[in-house]
Amino acid sequence: MLAQATTQYQQRVDNQLTQVIDAQSVTDSQLLAAMKHGALIGGKRIRPFLVYAIGEMLNVPQEKLDAAAAAIECIHAYSLIHDDLPAMDDDALRRGQPTVHVAFDEATAILAGDALQALAFDILSQPIDGLTPTQNLAMVRALAKASGYSGMCGGQAMDLNATDKQIDLATLTQLHKLKTGALIRCAVELPMIAADLPKDEQALLMTFADAVGLAFQVQDDVIDIISSTEELGKPQGSDCDSNKSTYPKLLGLDGAKATAESLIQDALSALTKLPYNSQLIAEFARFIIERRV
Amino acid sequence: MLAQATTQYQQRVDNQLTQVIDAQSVTDSQLLAAMKHGALIGGKRIRPFLVYAIGEMLNVPQEKLDAAAAAIECIHAYSLIHDDLPAMDDDALRRGQPTVHVAFDEATAILAGDALQALAFDILSQPIDGLTPTQNLAMVRALAKASGYSGMCGGQAMDLNATDKQIDLATLTQLHKLKTGALIRCAVELPMIAADLPKDEQALLMTFADAVGLAFQVQDDVIDIISSTEELGKPQGSDCDSNKSTYPKLLGLDGAKATAESLIQDALSALTKLPYNSQLIAEFARFIIERRV
Repeated sequence: MLAQATTQYQQRVDNQLTQVIDAQSVTDSQLLAAMKHGALIGGKRIRPFLVYAIGEMLNVPQEKLDAAAAAIECIHAYSLIHDDLPAMDDDALRRGQPTVHVAFDEATAILAGDALQALAFDILSQPIDGLTPTQNLAMVRALAKASGYSGMCGGQAMDLNATDKQIDLATLTQLHKLKTGALIRCAVELPMIAADLPKDEQALLMTFADAVGLAFQVQDDVIDIISSTEELGKPQGSDCDSNKSTYPKLLGLDGAKATAESLIQDALSALTKLPYNSQLIAEFARFIIERRV
Repeated sequence: MLAQATTQYQQRVDNQLTQVIDAQSVTDSQLLAAMKHGALIGGKRIRPFLVYAIGEMLNVPQEKLDAAAAAIECIHAYSLIHDDLPAMDDDALRRGQPTVHVAFDEATAILAGDALQALAFDILSQPIDGLTPTQNLAMVRALAKASGYSGMCGGQAMDLNATDKQIDLATLTQLHKLKTGALIRCAVELPMIAADLPKDEQALLMTFADAVGLAFQVQDDVIDIISSTEELGKPQGSDCDSNKSTYPKLLGLDGAKATAESLIQDALSALTKLPYNSQLIAEFARFIIERRV
Protein backbone atom coordinates (compact mmCIF):
# COMPACT_ATOMS: atom_id res chain seq x y z
CA MET A 1 0.00 0.00 0.00
CA LEU A 2 2.78 2.40 0.92
CA ALA A 3 4.81 1.69 -2.21
CA GLN A 4 1.80 2.23 -4.47
CA ALA A 5 0.77 5.48 -2.77
CA THR A 6 4.36 6.72 -2.78
CA THR A 7 4.65 6.20 -6.52
CA GLN A 8 1.29 7.79 -7.27
CA TYR A 9 1.92 10.88 -5.12
CA GLN A 10 5.48 11.21 -6.45
CA GLN A 11 4.26 11.15 -10.05
CA ARG A 12 1.49 13.58 -9.23
CA VAL A 13 3.76 16.17 -7.63
CA ASP A 14 6.41 15.75 -10.33
CA ASN A 15 3.74 16.38 -12.98
CA GLN A 16 2.62 19.49 -11.11
CA LEU A 17 6.15 20.81 -10.82
CA THR A 18 6.98 20.07 -14.46
CA GLN A 19 3.80 21.79 -15.63
CA VAL A 20 4.36 24.87 -13.47
CA ILE A 21 8.00 25.27 -14.46
CA ASP A 22 7.35 24.64 -18.16
CA ALA A 23 4.52 27.20 -18.12
CA GLN A 24 6.87 30.05 -17.12
CA SER A 25 7.44 32.52 -19.94
CA VAL A 26 11.16 32.30 -20.59
CA THR A 27 13.30 35.12 -19.21
CA ASP A 28 16.65 33.38 -18.71
CA SER A 29 16.66 29.80 -20.01
CA GLN A 30 19.69 28.75 -17.95
CA LEU A 31 18.02 29.85 -14.72
CA LEU A 32 14.89 27.90 -15.63
CA ALA A 33 16.99 24.80 -16.40
CA ALA A 34 18.71 25.13 -13.02
CA MET A 35 15.37 25.45 -11.23
CA LYS A 36 14.14 22.33 -13.01
CA HIS A 37 17.36 20.45 -12.18
CA GLY A 38 16.96 21.34 -8.51
CA ALA A 39 13.24 20.63 -8.30
CA LEU A 40 13.12 17.44 -10.37
CA ILE A 41 16.44 15.76 -9.50
CA GLY A 42 14.48 12.97 -7.79
CA GLY A 43 14.25 12.20 -4.11
CA LYS A 44 11.74 10.64 -1.78
CA ARG A 45 9.14 13.43 -1.98
CA ILE A 46 8.36 12.90 1.70
CA ARG A 47 6.71 16.29 2.16
CA PRO A 48 4.31 15.97 -0.82
CA PHE A 49 3.63 12.39 0.33
CA LEU A 50 2.53 13.66 3.73
CA VAL A 51 0.39 16.41 2.18
CA TYR A 52 -1.51 13.91 0.01
CA ALA A 53 -1.60 11.01 2.49
CA ILE A 54 -2.82 13.11 5.42
CA GLY A 55 -5.29 14.65 2.98
CA GLU A 56 -6.55 11.21 2.00
CA MET A 57 -6.95 10.27 5.65
CA LEU A 58 -8.96 13.47 6.25
CA ASN A 59 -11.04 13.01 3.07
CA VAL A 60 -9.55 16.03 1.27
CA PRO A 61 -9.45 15.40 -2.51
CA GLN A 62 -6.01 15.53 -4.13
CA GLU A 63 -7.09 18.41 -6.38
CA LYS A 64 -7.34 20.68 -3.36
CA LEU A 65 -3.80 19.76 -2.30
CA ASP A 66 -1.84 19.86 -5.56
CA ALA A 67 -0.70 23.44 -4.95
CA ALA A 68 0.33 22.65 -1.37
CA ALA A 69 2.32 19.58 -2.44
CA ALA A 70 4.11 21.40 -5.26
CA ALA A 71 4.78 24.51 -3.15
CA ILE A 72 6.30 22.64 -0.21
CA GLU A 73 8.53 20.64 -2.55
CA CYS A 74 9.72 23.91 -4.16
CA ILE A 75 10.73 25.14 -0.70
CA HIS A 76 12.50 21.85 0.06
CA ALA A 77 14.27 21.89 -3.33
CA TYR A 78 15.45 25.49 -2.90
CA SER A 79 16.80 24.70 0.57
CA LEU A 80 18.85 21.78 -0.80
CA ILE A 81 20.28 23.96 -3.59
CA HIS A 82 21.38 26.62 -1.10
CA ASP A 83 22.58 24.08 1.53
CA ASP A 84 24.84 22.46 -1.09
CA LEU A 85 26.59 25.77 -1.96
CA PRO A 86 30.35 26.06 -1.28
CA ALA A 87 29.72 28.63 1.47
CA MET A 88 27.32 26.23 3.19
CA ASP A 89 27.80 22.41 3.17
CA ASP A 90 29.84 22.45 -0.07
CA ASP A 91 28.40 19.25 -1.56
CA ALA A 92 29.12 18.31 -5.17
CA LEU A 93 26.68 15.39 -5.28
CA ARG A 94 23.01 15.12 -4.40
CA ARG A 95 21.06 11.94 -5.04
CA GLY A 96 24.01 10.72 -7.10
CA GLN A 97 23.86 13.70 -9.47
CA PRO A 98 25.85 16.95 -9.63
CA THR A 99 24.40 19.64 -7.38
CA VAL A 100 23.03 22.77 -9.05
CA HIS A 101 26.11 24.96 -8.49
CA VAL A 102 28.27 22.18 -10.00
CA ALA A 103 25.97 21.52 -12.98
CA PHE A 104 25.56 25.28 -13.55
CA ASP A 105 27.43 27.83 -11.44
CA GLU A 106 27.19 29.42 -8.01
CA ALA A 107 25.35 32.56 -9.04
CA THR A 108 22.78 30.52 -10.97
CA ALA A 109 22.35 28.18 -7.99
CA ILE A 110 21.70 31.10 -5.62
CA LEU A 111 19.15 32.57 -8.04
CA ALA A 112 17.52 29.20 -8.77
CA GLY A 113 16.96 28.74 -5.03
CA ASP A 114 15.59 32.27 -4.69
CA ALA A 115 13.27 31.80 -7.65
CA LEU A 116 12.01 28.42 -6.39
CA GLN A 117 11.12 30.01 -3.06
CA ALA A 118 9.14 32.74 -4.84
CA LEU A 119 7.53 30.07 -7.06
CA ALA A 120 6.32 28.22 -3.95
CA PHE A 121 4.38 31.27 -2.80
CA ASP A 122 3.20 32.00 -6.33
CA ILE A 123 1.77 28.47 -6.62
CA LEU A 124 0.18 28.51 -3.18
CA SER A 125 -1.44 31.93 -3.59
CA GLN A 126 -3.40 30.95 -6.71
CA PRO A 127 -7.11 30.54 -5.89
CA ILE A 128 -7.89 26.84 -5.22
CA ASP A 129 -11.28 25.37 -6.15
CA GLY A 130 -13.16 24.25 -3.06
CA LEU A 131 -11.00 26.19 -0.60
CA THR A 132 -11.91 29.60 0.81
CA PRO A 133 -9.45 32.49 0.34
CA THR A 134 -9.04 32.38 4.13
CA GLN A 135 -7.89 28.75 4.01
CA ASN A 136 -5.68 29.57 1.06
CA LEU A 137 -4.08 32.44 2.94
CA ALA A 138 -3.59 30.29 6.05
CA MET A 139 -1.65 27.82 3.90
CA VAL A 140 0.63 30.59 2.62
CA ARG A 141 1.21 31.75 6.18
CA ALA A 142 2.00 28.25 7.44
CA LEU A 143 4.51 27.69 4.65
CA ALA A 144 6.16 31.08 5.16
CA LYS A 145 6.57 30.51 8.91
CA ALA A 146 7.92 26.98 8.42
CA SER A 147 10.46 28.16 5.82
CA GLY A 148 11.82 31.26 7.45
CA TYR A 149 13.76 32.44 10.45
CA SER A 150 11.47 30.71 12.98
CA GLY A 151 11.71 27.50 10.97
CA MET A 152 14.00 25.99 8.37
CA CYS A 153 16.36 28.95 7.84
CA GLY A 154 16.83 29.40 11.59
CA GLY A 155 17.58 25.69 11.95
CA GLN A 156 20.11 25.75 9.13
CA ALA A 157 21.87 28.73 10.77
CA MET A 158 21.96 26.85 14.10
CA ASP A 159 23.37 23.83 12.27
CA LEU A 160 26.17 25.83 10.63
CA ASN A 161 27.08 27.44 13.94
CA ALA A 162 27.12 24.03 15.66
CA THR A 163 29.83 22.68 13.34
CA ASP A 164 33.08 21.97 15.19
CA LYS A 165 31.29 22.60 18.48
CA GLN A 166 30.02 20.34 21.25
CA ILE A 167 26.27 20.86 21.58
CA ASP A 168 23.94 19.10 23.99
CA LEU A 169 20.95 16.94 23.14
CA ALA A 170 18.42 19.72 23.83
CA THR A 171 20.16 22.06 21.39
CA LEU A 172 20.53 19.34 18.75
CA THR A 173 16.83 18.53 19.10
CA GLN A 174 15.82 22.19 18.82
CA LEU A 175 18.08 22.57 15.76
CA HIS A 176 16.46 19.65 13.96
CA LYS A 177 12.93 20.62 15.00
CA LEU A 178 13.58 23.78 13.01
CA LYS A 179 15.86 22.61 10.20
CA THR A 180 13.91 19.51 9.10
CA GLY A 181 10.97 19.34 11.48
CA ALA A 182 9.31 22.66 10.64
CA LEU A 183 8.71 21.75 7.00
CA ILE A 184 7.54 18.20 7.83
CA ARG A 185 5.14 19.68 10.38
CA CYS A 186 3.95 22.08 7.69
CA ALA A 187 3.31 19.14 5.31
CA VAL A 188 0.82 17.85 7.87
CA GLU A 189 -0.57 21.31 8.62
CA LEU A 190 -1.46 22.17 5.00
CA PRO A 191 -4.03 19.35 4.47
CA MET A 192 -5.28 19.99 8.02
CA ILE A 193 -6.06 23.60 7.00
CA ALA A 194 -7.91 22.29 3.95
CA ALA A 195 -9.92 19.88 6.13
CA ASP A 196 -10.94 22.49 8.73
CA LEU A 197 -10.23 20.07 11.58
CA PRO A 198 -11.46 20.40 15.21
CA LYS A 199 -8.81 21.71 17.62
CA ASP A 200 -8.24 18.45 19.52
CA GLU A 201 -7.64 16.54 16.30
CA GLN A 202 -5.26 19.29 15.15
CA ALA A 203 -3.24 18.85 18.33
CA LEU A 204 -2.96 15.07 17.84
CA LEU A 205 -1.83 15.50 14.24
CA MET A 206 0.79 18.04 15.28
CA THR A 207 2.10 15.60 17.91
CA PHE A 208 2.32 13.00 15.15
CA ALA A 209 4.10 15.44 12.82
CA ASP A 210 6.66 16.60 15.39
CA ALA A 211 7.56 13.04 16.38
CA VAL A 212 7.87 11.83 12.78
CA GLY A 213 9.91 14.91 11.79
CA LEU A 214 12.43 14.33 14.55
CA ALA A 215 12.55 10.56 13.99
CA PHE A 216 13.30 11.27 10.32
CA GLN A 217 16.39 13.28 11.29
CA VAL A 218 17.58 10.79 13.91
CA GLN A 219 17.29 8.02 11.31
CA ASP A 220 19.17 10.18 8.78
CA ASP A 221 22.04 10.37 11.26
CA VAL A 222 21.85 6.59 11.83
CA ILE A 223 21.84 5.90 8.09
CA ASP A 224 24.84 8.16 7.64
CA ILE A 225 26.79 5.81 9.92
CA ILE A 226 25.60 2.46 8.63
CA SER A 227 25.08 2.89 4.88
CA SER A 228 27.58 2.71 2.08
CA THR A 229 28.61 5.60 -0.18
CA GLU A 230 27.00 3.93 -3.16
CA GLU A 231 23.57 3.73 -1.58
CA LEU A 232 23.63 7.32 -0.36
CA GLY A 233 25.12 9.07 -3.37
CA LYS A 234 27.38 11.02 -1.03
CA PRO A 235 30.54 10.07 0.88
CA GLN A 236 29.78 7.77 3.82
CA GLY A 237 29.83 9.36 7.24
CA SER A 238 30.28 12.83 5.73
CA ASP A 239 28.40 14.56 8.55
CA CYS A 240 30.56 12.64 11.03
CA ASP A 241 33.81 13.67 9.35
CA SER A 242 32.77 17.31 9.24
CA ASN A 243 32.52 17.42 13.02
CA LYS A 244 28.81 18.02 13.19
CA SER A 245 26.93 16.90 16.25
CA THR A 246 24.64 13.94 15.50
CA TYR A 247 22.34 11.72 17.53
CA PRO A 248 24.67 8.68 17.29
CA LYS A 249 27.55 10.84 18.54
CA LEU A 250 25.57 12.02 21.56
CA LEU A 251 23.63 8.81 22.26
CA GLY A 252 25.65 6.05 20.62
CA LEU A 253 24.32 4.15 17.60
CA ASP A 254 21.99 1.96 19.67
CA GLY A 255 20.78 4.94 21.68
CA ALA A 256 19.96 6.82 18.49
CA LYS A 257 18.10 3.83 17.08
CA ALA A 258 16.11 3.51 20.32
CA THR A 259 15.26 7.23 20.21
CA ALA A 260 13.96 6.93 16.66
CA GLU A 261 11.89 3.89 17.65
CA SER A 262 10.45 5.67 20.67
CA LEU A 263 9.53 8.75 18.60
CA ILE A 264 7.69 6.58 16.09
CA GLN A 265 5.78 4.94 18.95
CA ASP A 266 4.69 8.43 20.07
CA ALA A 267 3.62 9.20 16.51
CA LEU A 268 1.64 5.97 16.17
CA SER A 269 0.01 6.48 19.53
CA ALA A 270 -1.25 9.93 18.47
CA LEU A 271 -2.62 8.41 15.26
CA THR A 272 -4.67 5.73 17.04
CA LYS A 273 -6.52 8.45 18.96
CA LEU A 274 -7.82 9.95 15.71
CA PRO A 275 -11.17 8.80 14.26
CA TYR A 276 -9.72 8.13 10.80
CA ASN A 277 -8.29 5.24 8.83
CA SER A 278 -4.61 5.88 9.48
CA GLN A 279 -3.20 2.65 8.06
CA LEU A 280 -1.21 4.29 5.25
CA ILE A 281 0.17 6.99 7.51
CA ALA A 282 1.16 4.42 10.13
CA GLU A 283 2.96 2.40 7.47
CA PHE A 284 4.77 5.57 6.43
CA ALA A 285 5.82 6.31 10.01
CA ARG A 286 7.36 2.85 10.35
CA PHE A 287 9.08 3.29 6.98
CA ILE A 288 10.78 6.45 8.28
CA ILE A 289 12.84 4.45 10.77
CA GLU A 290 13.17 1.27 8.71
CA ARG A 291 14.56 2.93 5.57
CA ARG A 292 18.25 2.52 4.77
CA VAL A 293 18.55 5.45 2.34
CA MET B 1 5.90 67.94 0.27
CA LEU B 2 7.99 65.12 -1.18
CA ALA B 3 10.70 65.40 1.50
CA GLN B 4 8.14 65.36 4.31
CA ALA B 5 6.25 62.36 2.90
CA THR B 6 9.51 60.52 2.21
CA THR B 7 10.62 60.91 5.81
CA GLN B 8 7.24 59.90 7.22
CA TYR B 9 6.91 56.80 5.04
CA GLN B 10 10.54 55.83 5.65
CA GLN B 11 10.09 56.03 9.41
CA ARG B 12 6.82 54.13 9.19
CA VAL B 13 8.26 51.22 7.22
CA ASP B 14 11.43 51.13 9.34
CA ASN B 15 9.26 50.91 12.46
CA GLN B 16 7.28 48.07 10.91
CA LEU B 17 10.42 46.18 9.95
CA THR B 18 12.05 46.70 13.33
CA GLN B 19 8.92 45.52 15.14
CA VAL B 20 8.51 42.44 12.96
CA ILE B 21 12.16 41.41 13.22
CA ASP B 22 12.35 42.08 16.98
CA ALA B 23 9.17 40.04 17.51
CA GLN B 24 10.75 36.84 16.13
CA SER B 25 11.43 34.27 18.84
CA VAL B 26 15.19 33.86 18.74
CA THR B 27 16.53 30.75 16.99
CA ASP B 28 19.96 31.89 15.82
CA SER B 29 20.83 35.40 17.03
CA GLN B 30 23.53 35.95 14.41
CA LEU B 31 21.09 35.20 11.59
CA LEU B 32 18.59 37.65 13.05
CA ALA B 33 21.29 40.33 13.34
CA ALA B 34 22.24 39.76 9.70
CA MET B 35 18.61 40.05 8.59
CA LYS B 36 18.31 43.31 10.53
CA HIS B 37 21.56 44.62 9.07
CA GLY B 38 20.31 43.87 5.57
CA ALA B 39 16.80 45.21 6.08
CA LEU B 40 17.62 48.32 8.08
CA ILE B 41 20.94 49.44 6.56
CA GLY B 42 19.19 52.56 5.23
CA GLY B 43 18.40 53.44 1.65
CA LYS B 44 15.79 55.41 -0.16
CA ARG B 45 12.83 53.10 0.59
CA ILE B 46 11.44 53.83 -2.87
CA ARG B 47 9.17 50.78 -2.95
CA PRO B 48 7.50 51.44 0.42
CA PHE B 49 7.23 55.09 -0.61
CA LEU B 50 5.30 54.10 -3.72
CA VAL B 51 3.06 51.73 -1.74
CA TYR B 52 2.07 54.46 0.72
CA ALA B 53 2.00 57.38 -1.73
CA ILE B 54 -0.10 55.59 -4.34
CA GLY B 55 -2.29 54.43 -1.45
CA GLU B 56 -2.72 58.03 -0.28
CA MET B 57 -3.65 59.08 -3.80
CA LEU B 58 -6.27 56.31 -3.93
CA ASN B 59 -7.57 57.04 -0.41
CA VAL B 60 -6.30 53.79 1.09
CA PRO B 61 -5.35 54.30 4.77
CA GLN B 62 -1.72 53.58 5.68
CA GLU B 63 -2.81 50.87 8.15
CA LYS B 64 -4.04 48.75 5.27
CA LEU B 65 -0.68 49.06 3.54
CA ASP B 66 1.83 48.57 6.33
CA ALA B 67 2.21 44.87 5.57
CA ALA B 68 2.63 45.52 1.85
CA ALA B 69 5.28 48.20 2.46
CA ALA B 70 7.26 46.05 4.90
CA ALA B 71 6.98 42.92 2.75
CA ILE B 72 8.17 44.56 -0.46
CA GLU B 73 11.12 46.11 1.37
CA CYS B 74 12.04 42.65 2.75
CA ILE B 75 12.13 41.32 -0.82
CA HIS B 76 14.25 44.28 -1.95
CA ALA B 77 16.60 43.88 1.02
CA TYR B 78 17.05 40.13 0.43
CA SER B 79 17.81 40.76 -3.25
CA LEU B 80 20.54 43.25 -2.34
CA ILE B 81 22.12 40.81 0.14
CA HIS B 82 22.25 38.06 -2.48
CA ASP B 83 23.32 40.39 -5.33
CA ASP B 84 26.27 41.56 -3.24
CA LEU B 85 27.59 37.99 -2.67
CA PRO B 86 31.03 37.08 -4.06
CA ALA B 87 29.45 34.70 -6.59
CA MET B 88 27.18 37.50 -7.85
CA ASP B 89 28.31 41.18 -7.99
CA ASP B 90 30.91 40.74 -5.22
CA ASP B 91 30.34 44.11 -3.52
CA ALA B 92 31.90 44.85 -0.13
CA LEU B 93 30.08 48.13 0.41
CA ARG B 94 26.40 49.04 0.26
CA ARG B 95 25.18 52.50 1.24
CA GLY B 96 28.65 53.17 2.66
CA GLN B 97 28.47 50.21 5.04
CA PRO B 98 29.87 46.67 4.87
CA THR B 99 27.58 44.30 2.97
CA VAL B 100 26.03 41.41 4.92
CA HIS B 101 28.54 38.76 3.83
CA VAL B 102 31.39 41.10 4.84
CA ALA B 103 29.86 42.10 8.19
CA PHE B 104 28.94 38.45 8.91
CA ASP B 105 29.91 35.63 6.52
CA GLU B 106 28.73 34.20 3.21
CA ALA B 107 26.61 31.38 4.64
CA THR B 108 24.84 33.80 6.99
CA ALA B 109 24.25 36.23 4.11
CA ILE B 110 22.67 33.50 1.97
CA LEU B 111 20.42 32.45 4.86
CA ALA B 112 19.57 36.04 5.83
CA GLY B 113 18.37 36.65 2.27
CA ASP B 114 16.39 33.41 2.25
CA ALA B 115 14.79 34.20 5.61
CA LEU B 116 13.92 37.77 4.57
CA GLN B 117 12.14 36.42 1.50
CA ALA B 118 10.11 34.04 3.69
CA LEU B 119 9.44 36.90 6.12
CA ALA B 120 7.98 38.99 3.29
CA PHE B 121 5.36 36.32 2.59
CA ASP B 122 4.77 35.74 6.29
CA ILE B 123 4.06 39.46 6.80
CA LEU B 124 1.84 39.76 3.74
CA SER B 125 -0.22 36.66 4.51
CA GLN B 126 -1.34 37.90 7.94
CA PRO B 127 -5.00 38.96 7.86
CA ILE B 128 -5.27 42.73 7.29
CA ASP B 129 -8.11 44.74 8.85
CA GLY B 130 -10.33 46.24 6.17
CA LEU B 131 -9.07 43.99 3.37
CA THR B 132 -10.80 40.81 2.22
CA PRO B 133 -8.81 37.55 2.23
CA THR B 134 -9.15 37.65 -1.57
CA GLN B 135 -7.40 41.03 -1.72
CA ASN B 136 -4.83 39.78 0.76
CA LEU B 137 -4.13 36.72 -1.37
CA ALA B 138 -3.91 38.81 -4.55
CA MET B 139 -1.19 40.88 -2.86
CA VAL B 140 0.80 37.73 -2.01
CA ARG B 141 0.45 36.56 -5.60
CA ALA B 142 1.56 39.90 -7.04
CA LEU B 143 4.63 39.96 -4.80
CA ALA B 144 5.56 36.33 -5.57
CA LYS B 145 5.32 36.91 -9.33
CA ALA B 146 7.31 40.15 -9.17
CA SER B 147 10.06 38.52 -7.10
CA GLY B 148 10.54 35.27 -8.92
CA TYR B 149 11.62 33.81 -12.22
CA SER B 150 9.21 35.96 -14.27
CA GLY B 151 10.37 39.05 -12.41
CA MET B 152 13.36 40.09 -10.32
CA CYS B 153 15.24 36.75 -10.23
CA GLY B 154 14.88 36.31 -13.99
CA GLY B 155 16.17 39.85 -14.54
CA GLN B 156 19.15 39.29 -12.27
CA ALA B 157 20.03 36.10 -14.19
CA MET B 158 19.80 38.00 -17.49
CA ASP B 159 22.01 40.70 -15.99
CA LEU B 160 24.70 38.22 -14.91
CA ASN B 161 24.65 36.56 -18.33
CA ALA B 162 24.94 39.94 -20.06
CA THR B 163 28.23 40.76 -18.31
CA ASP B 164 31.14 40.96 -20.79
CA LYS B 165 28.67 40.71 -23.65
CA GLN B 166 27.28 43.22 -26.12
CA ILE B 167 23.52 43.34 -25.72
CA ASP B 168 21.11 45.54 -27.66
CA LEU B 169 18.75 48.15 -26.27
CA ALA B 170 15.70 45.86 -26.43
CA THR B 171 17.46 43.18 -24.34
CA LEU B 172 18.79 45.75 -21.86
CA THR B 173 15.29 47.19 -21.49
CA GLN B 174 13.73 43.75 -20.97
CA LEU B 175 16.43 42.91 -18.42
CA HIS B 176 15.72 46.02 -16.37
CA LYS B 177 11.95 45.70 -16.69
CA LEU B 178 12.42 42.43 -14.81
CA LYS B 179 15.37 43.13 -12.53
CA THR B 180 14.23 46.50 -11.13
CA GLY B 181 10.97 47.21 -12.90
CA ALA B 182 8.95 44.22 -11.69
CA LEU B 183 9.24 45.15 -8.02
CA ILE B 184 8.54 48.86 -8.65
CA ARG B 185 5.49 47.86 -10.66
CA CYS B 186 4.46 45.65 -7.75
CA ALA B 187 4.81 48.59 -5.34
CA VAL B 188 2.12 50.35 -7.39
CA GLU B 189 0.04 47.20 -7.80
CA LEU B 190 -0.26 46.43 -4.06
CA PRO B 191 -2.15 49.62 -3.08
CA MET B 192 -4.15 49.27 -6.29
CA ILE B 193 -5.33 45.84 -5.10
CA ALA B 194 -6.30 47.37 -1.75
CA ALA B 195 -8.25 50.13 -3.54
CA ASP B 196 -10.18 47.78 -5.88
CA LEU B 197 -9.64 50.12 -8.83
CA PRO B 198 -11.59 50.05 -12.13
CA LYS B 199 -9.72 48.37 -15.00
CA ASP B 200 -8.98 51.54 -17.03
CA GLU B 201 -7.45 53.25 -14.01
CA GLN B 202 -5.40 50.12 -13.30
CA ALA B 203 -3.99 50.26 -16.82
CA LEU B 204 -2.99 53.92 -16.45
CA LEU B 205 -1.27 53.24 -13.14
CA MET B 206 0.62 50.30 -14.63
CA THR B 207 1.79 52.56 -17.50
CA PHE B 208 2.99 55.02 -14.87
CA ALA B 209 4.74 52.27 -12.90
CA ASP B 210 6.52 50.74 -15.90
CA ALA B 211 7.78 54.12 -17.10
CA VAL B 212 9.01 55.17 -13.64
CA GLY B 213 10.64 51.79 -13.05
CA LEU B 214 12.63 51.96 -16.25
CA ALA B 215 13.51 55.65 -15.75
CA PHE B 216 14.82 54.74 -12.31
CA GLN B 217 17.28 52.26 -13.82
CA VAL B 218 18.35 54.58 -16.65
CA GLN B 219 19.03 57.30 -14.09
CA ASP B 220 20.98 54.80 -11.94
CA ASP B 221 23.25 54.19 -14.93
CA VAL B 222 23.59 57.94 -15.49
CA ILE B 223 24.42 58.55 -11.83
CA ASP B 224 27.03 55.81 -11.94
CA ILE B 225 28.87 57.84 -14.60
CA ILE B 226 28.55 61.31 -13.13
CA SER B 227 28.69 60.88 -9.36
CA SER B 228 31.67 60.57 -7.08
CA THR B 229 32.57 57.50 -5.03
CA GLU B 230 31.91 59.35 -1.81
CA GLU B 231 28.33 60.21 -2.72
CA LEU B 232 27.51 56.68 -3.87
CA GLY B 233 29.20 54.64 -1.18
CA LYS B 234 30.62 52.37 -3.87
CA PRO B 235 33.48 52.76 -6.35
CA GLN B 236 32.60 55.23 -9.13
CA GLY B 237 31.69 53.72 -12.46
CA SER B 238 31.82 50.22 -11.05
CA ASP B 239 29.15 48.91 -13.43
CA CYS B 240 31.08 50.49 -16.31
CA ASP B 241 34.39 48.89 -15.29
CA SER B 242 32.81 45.49 -14.95
CA ASN B 243 31.81 45.50 -18.61
CA LYS B 244 28.11 45.52 -18.05
CA SER B 245 25.88 47.02 -20.70
CA THR B 246 24.30 50.29 -19.55
CA TYR B 247 22.06 52.92 -21.12
CA PRO B 248 24.88 55.51 -21.35
CA LYS B 249 27.05 52.93 -23.12
CA LEU B 250 24.37 52.16 -25.68
CA LEU B 251 22.90 55.67 -26.05
CA GLY B 252 25.65 58.01 -24.86
CA LEU B 253 25.28 60.05 -21.66
CA ASP B 254 23.00 62.66 -23.28
CA GLY B 255 20.95 59.95 -24.98
CA ALA B 256 20.44 58.17 -21.67
CA LYS B 257 19.41 61.43 -19.96
CA ALA B 258 16.93 62.12 -22.75
CA THR B 259 15.49 58.60 -22.44
CA ALA B 260 14.97 59.04 -18.69
CA GLU B 261 13.30 62.41 -19.29
CA SER B 262 11.02 60.97 -21.96
CA LEU B 263 10.01 58.04 -19.71
CA ILE B 264 9.10 60.43 -16.92
CA GLN B 265 6.98 62.45 -19.37
CA ASP B 266 5.09 59.22 -20.22
CA ALA B 267 4.63 58.55 -16.51
CA LEU B 268 3.33 62.08 -15.82
CA SER B 269 1.03 61.93 -18.81
CA ALA B 270 -0.57 58.72 -17.47
CA LEU B 271 -1.03 60.37 -14.07
CA THR B 272 -2.86 63.39 -15.46
CA LYS B 273 -5.51 61.08 -16.95
CA LEU B 274 -6.40 59.75 -13.50
CA PRO B 275 -9.15 61.42 -11.42
CA TYR B 276 -6.95 61.78 -8.33
CA ASN B 277 -4.69 64.34 -6.73
CA SER B 278 -1.39 63.09 -8.07
CA GLN B 279 0.79 66.01 -6.99
CA LEU B 280 2.98 63.99 -4.59
CA ILE B 281 3.41 61.14 -7.05
CA ALA B 282 4.31 63.55 -9.85
CA GLU B 283 6.90 65.18 -7.61
CA PHE B 284 8.32 61.74 -6.89
CA ALA B 285 8.50 60.90 -10.62
CA ARG B 286 10.51 64.05 -11.29
CA PHE B 287 12.77 63.27 -8.31
CA ILE B 288 13.61 59.89 -9.88
CA ILE B 289 15.47 61.56 -12.75
CA GLU B 290 16.73 64.58 -10.83
CA ARG B 291 18.39 62.65 -8.00
CA ARG B 292 22.16 62.38 -7.92
CA VAL B 293 22.39 59.40 -5.53
